[in-house]
Amino acid sequence: MAKRLGRRTIAFDRPVYISAHAAIVGQKEGEGPLQGTFDKVSGDAHFGQKTWELAEAAMQRDAIQTAAAKAGLELADLDLILAGDLLNQCIGSSLASVQSSVPFVGLYGACSTMAEGLAVGGCLIDGGAAHTLCAAASSHFCAAERQYRFPLAYGGQRTPTAQWTATASGAAILTGKKTPVRVTHAVFGQMVDLDVTDANNMGAAMAPAAYDTLAHLFADTCTGPADYDRILTGDLARVGSEILRGLFARDQTDLGDGYADCGMLLYDSEQDVHAGGSGCGCSAAVLCGDILDRMERGALGRVIFAGTGALMSPTSVQQGQGIAGICHAVILEGA
Amino acid sequence: MAKRLGRRTIAFDRPVYISAHAAIVGQKEGEGPLQGTFDKVSGDAHFGQKTWELAEAAMQRDAIQTAAAKAGLELADLDLILAGDLLNQCIGSSLASVQSSVPFVGLYGACSTMAEGLAVGGCLIDGGAAHTLCAAASSHFCAAERQYRFPLAYGGQRTPTAQWTATASGAAILTGKKTPVRVTHAVFGQMVDLDVTDANNMGAAMAPAAYDTLAHLFADTCTGPADYDRILTGDLARVGSEILRGLFARDQTDLGDGYADCGMLLYDSEQDVHAGGSGCGCSAAVLCGDILDRMERGALGRVIFAGTGALMSPTSVQQGQGIAGICHAVILEGA
Repeated sequence: MAKRLGRRTIAFDRPVYISAHAAIVGQKEGEGPLQGTFDKVSGDAHFGQKTWELAEAAMQRDAIQTAAAKAGLELADLDLILAGDLLNQCIGSSLASVQSSVPFVGLYGACSTMAEGLAVGGCLIDGGAAHTLCAAASSHFCAAERQYRFPLAYGGQRTPTAQWTATASGAAILTGKKTPVRVTHAVFGQMVDLDVTDANNMGAAMAPAAYDTLAHLFADTCTGPADYDRILTGDLARVGSEILRGLFARDQTDLGDGYADCGMLLYDSEQDVHAGGSGCGCSAAVLCGDILDRMERGALGRVIFAGTGALMSPTSVQQGQGIAGICHAVILEGA
Repeated sequence: MAKRLGRRTIAFDRPVYISAHAAIVGQKEGEGPLQGTFDKVSGDAHFGQKTWELAEAAMQRDAIQTAAAKAGLELADLDLILAGDLLNQCIGSSLASVQSSVPFVGLYGACSTMAEGLAVGGCLIDGGAAHTLCAAASSHFCAAERQYRFPLAYGGQRTPTAQWTATASGAAILTGKKTPVRVTHAVFGQMVDLDVTDANNMGAAMAPAAYDTLAHLFADTCTGPADYDRILTGDLARVGSEILRGLFARDQTDLGDGYADCGMLLYDSEQDVHAGGSGCGCSAAVLCGDILDRMERGALGRVIFAGTGALMSPTSVQQGQGIAGICHAVILEGA
């Protein structure tokens, strides 16, 4: 049974492990600094489908199926799929798993969805509600760009603070059986809205929420940044991660060299992504590719995975509402 | 720790109780057959706000705050809020709780969201991940109609199979401390898509999923319809609930007089809602008003609350995709 530490942190009492993981990405993501860490790179942005929504669904489905296969499982062996995405009514995730015959729990946490899924999933495994489940998330540049901003063919100019929605998906299988990577803690975050209304500066909107969640996590567990081999946010990108470092600096806390943001890891500065990557798939694919691979190899020990989301809709932005940030986190321990 | 029964059902081992609940609705809902069972009926469809999205948020916030107050709690006493709605990016629920300072888990299950929240929330309480939490859901006719179908002022004609999106919200506080209403089991459902593509006939799209979940629940718990004082779906409405009765009749199972659908309970036939009510708020307000009141008074004993959702988006419908139904359920036991 889980124990609550301090104000926010949930410590898993029974073992919760990641038994397999998979990351599927598009061409641009496959050409970035993390090339070679993904299970598949699709040269076809349509993933063989006739619409962008079906393309995203095919990509997420492939991530789930690949992760399950790597764990030696059939889809029917899963008790649950927990998944979400950025599309209206989370249709990408619904279409991904509609034929799976696996019970489905839809989540919405914007770009924090992968972390939200791992946190909820960890609680369900720890509590005995599920023995084996899959947490997944995805985003697709073409589907998101058209929905959130402009028609693709319009070729709208982007501001320097804008982030690039990754065409990417990640999936992780959680189980109670021992594997090299254990999920030890989870923190659900509160929304923080400091009245940032610029949808092209989501890093600034999300950074205060990341600070709030990480500060609670450190306090609740009596740890600091130096206790972790890697602290990963996703996806604050360049603007937001500088703000996050600044917020901790006010507390005389240095996030240190172990701190990195998935939005800055996925692309390099020559890939024209401005402030960096975003989208539910960005942090999902960085975690479910490179990071978990390195944890399994023993190259990374203790890691905080802190997914950050901007809770807005095109309607709310047009109506002048502030963009609320949220951050859910899990602590992972490697081999 | 929860135990899994059969293929789908989760039996809570530690006590999970509903300590308070609240339902807030609009004028039309307040004039229906359930009048007098809601905590508040707003004569102002705007709920004092300047947009429909903020109106829905104000209504959901009121439901959460009223439920917490009835449980003798401040919002700060909640470990979590689990909530969702029908609006793009679930913005109604985000706006409802953005100022709450309570950790927030966004859910998307379309009209099954209240049941999804109770099921996930029950697992979190049972597993010790939370001591006290709130599950909430809402929908607003004006916000939904504009987003899903036509501009309000257009006055589009509706087909006989169409359902009316309720302006309603419900919230329930879950806790481990004994109260008259216990949550004993939860079942997460799988998506079922029989290629219904008519967004004005969602009852037909959802009924097979309700059948799938209820059939698993009966098999896993070795019970049948006669073992329950009330089996509530929400919201299949007239068309979908007739299909559901028919599906069980093929198995020589009579759902009996105890079966009812929230979409048919909320309005009467003279209120021009065609097949009945729908929207996340419909089943949420029926449960968190009349049903839980009657369970607390001892007038209803064992109840299945089976939330049904149609997992579609306007985009997916325009693209000709089938509408997948889903159904999550909880078993409640009254005083």
